[in-house]
Amino acid sequence: MALNITILGLGPVGTSLGLALGTIDAQMLDVGRPVITGWDRDQSVMKEARGRLAADRVEGNLQRAVREADVVIAAVDYGEMRELLASIAPSLKNGAIVTDTTATKAPILEWATELLPITVEFIGGHPLTGFGDDAGLGTSRDALRGAIYCLVPLPRTRRAALDGVEALVTAIEAKPYYMDAFEHDSYVAAAAHLPLALALALMETVGQSGGWREIQAIAGEGLLRMTELASGDAALAGDALLGNAAAIDGWLDRLIGSLIDLQKTLRDPGALEALLERSRVTRDDWLRSEPNLRPGESTFHGNLQDVERPNLSGLFFGRRRPSPNPKKRR
Amino acid sequence: MALNITILGLGPVGTSLGLALGTIDAQMLDVGRPVITGWDRDQSVMKEARGRLAADRVEGNLQRAVREADVVIAAVDYGEMRELLASIAPSLKNGAIVTDTTATKAPILEWATELLPITVEFIGGHPLTGFGDDAGLGTSRDALRGAIYCLVPLPRTRRAALDGVEALVTAIEAKPYYMDAFEHDSYVAAAAHLPLALALALMETVGQSGGWREIQAIAGEGLLRMTELASGDAALAGDALLGNAAAIDGWLDRLIGSLIDLQKTLRDPGALEALLERSRVTRDDWLRSEPNLRPGESTFHGNLQDVERPNLSGLFFGRRRPSPNPKKRR
Repeated sequence: MALNITILGLGPVGTSLGLALGTIDAQMLDVGRPVITGWDRDQSVMKEARGRLAADRVEGNLQRAVREADVVIAAVDYGEMRELLASIAPSLKNGAIVTDTTATKAPILEWATELLPITVEFIGGHPLTGFGDDAGLGTSRDALRGAIYCLVPLPRTRRAALDGVEALVTAIEAKPYYMDAFEHDSYVAAAAHLPLALALALMETVGQSGGWREIQAIAGEGLLRMTELASGDAALAGDALLGNAAAIDGWLDRLIGSLIDLQKTLRDPGALEALLERSRVTRDDWLRSEPNLRPGESTFHGNLQDVERPNLSGLFFGRRRPSPNPKKRR
Repeated sequence: MALNITILGLGPVGTSLGLALGTIDAQMLDVGRPVITGWDRDQSVMKEARGRLAADRVEGNLQRAVREADVVIAAVDYGEMRELLASIAPSLKNGAIVTDTTATKAPILEWATELLPITVEFIGGHPLTGFGDDAGLGTSRDALRGAIYCLVPLPRTRRAALDGVEALVTAIEAKPYYMDAFEHDSYVAAAAHLPLALALALMETVGQSGGWREIQAIAGEGLLRMTELASGDAALAGDALLGNAAAIDGWLDRLIGSLIDLQKTLRDPGALEALLERSRVTRDDWLRSEPNLRPGESTFHGNLQDVERPNLSGLFFGRRRPSPNPKKRR
């Protein structure tokens, strides 16, 4: 009998997963190609996902959508997750495996423990599907190929369930990467949410200051780039920041510590030189590393090319490029 | 008799000024086209500037280079400025006008007051010549055309001297913009040095943390962009930060305040929503404004196009683009 997989939430992540799972080579899984059921709160989103073949069938009733599922993938926003888990809990069949895709794991695991019946397995999941600015690639089968896929089991999760999810992740050619929930949330906070928080704080500091009128006149691309993340989708940004607030808070403490250290360093040319060197080397090594590898994973071809240097004096002042013709913008 | 202008320091700013001043339309100035003398500590830099026609003549002896000058433009780094002013002071002719090009004005004005004879005029200058990443444009005549050119006189500077410098700035088609030294340094700190300081603090916070190995594996383009300024030329960065340390220190205090506020905001969905909205609107308005205008200066064509939104979820995680082929790099 074929494996029934239900995807709840057909945004970019849910759709990409549906496309990837629906094109699994039948030889890759013991059970052959799974059957994908899709559900979304929004009828039109569901229809579009069906049209893109991201699911074999769609089902608008949440309870019916999960009733026969062997695997349920909850791919809704952090803000909707608690309610979703509570809603599906009574309808899940015994032995079903539930996993999610949000960027925060500690609260999700807490909710799963609290809300899901003990007859059901839960494994937190977080596929790292970002593709820089190529938004189009965000919802394709390729969004997952080669991507790191974080897996965070509960202490009570059984080996067999873990093996099942790992087999699916491997079958879509993503790379399983086991982590502890608090570790995961902390690393994700540092990698993604701290930069966003910082862009907001910087925009607030200069943009709400009395000198903003003058500052914006002389500021160049540097300030523009350092505040870029503050221009992103506000709903997505809010969901991400609220969802991982505890871990972000710890990093903000550490960052404030670094800024206070920096205030001292600005009075000490030797220490400043050392800081500049240290930052540059750390970032260069990162840039030279092969992207998309789990720690410890490596490829054979060494990669010691030069790293591009930003033109600092060019980025400091004025002369930001005129906005391109509005007709060329989306 | 032609106006003698001596440019001390033939880096990008000095060279751009030489090219711009050397191609002034003779009708633009009462005195006709000025005669440009160039000096640099480095013989080969001097030779190259001469080859690029950035000066009519070069003179390797600093005292001889300034002796006949009506206007001396000190275009060396902040770190060399004090010594340079001390060295030229005894050789300046009565009534000579001295100006500089560094991004910090308060300490420079202090040194000018302390070191230059009372028979000489001093006006701080700061041309905003940045051109984003197009480093090539940094040393061309066009680097100054249309650029804001900050002018910071001493209290004792005479009107005639100010008019003379303003005439030169106007003749090279830059836009004179009068500011107070402390205002200037504060705005410059916010526009250029605070973003750099922040990139360094962020790189230090995450790069020196115990989790860096894991963080760099999952981090996407967002963190990469937010630390980009930390990869710039270390000597230039150090010179900029040390030169404006006092003003940067004040902004770091304010930024730390914003970060502490943000820690509270992360627990308050309504306040977070308001912050996200405020940041976005402030930055959008800035992006929609015409670049390179002094505050108050405006153009007639309204400019209400859409602003490009970064793809946040795409920037958060993994999948940074593989580094391009090393052969394609510079």
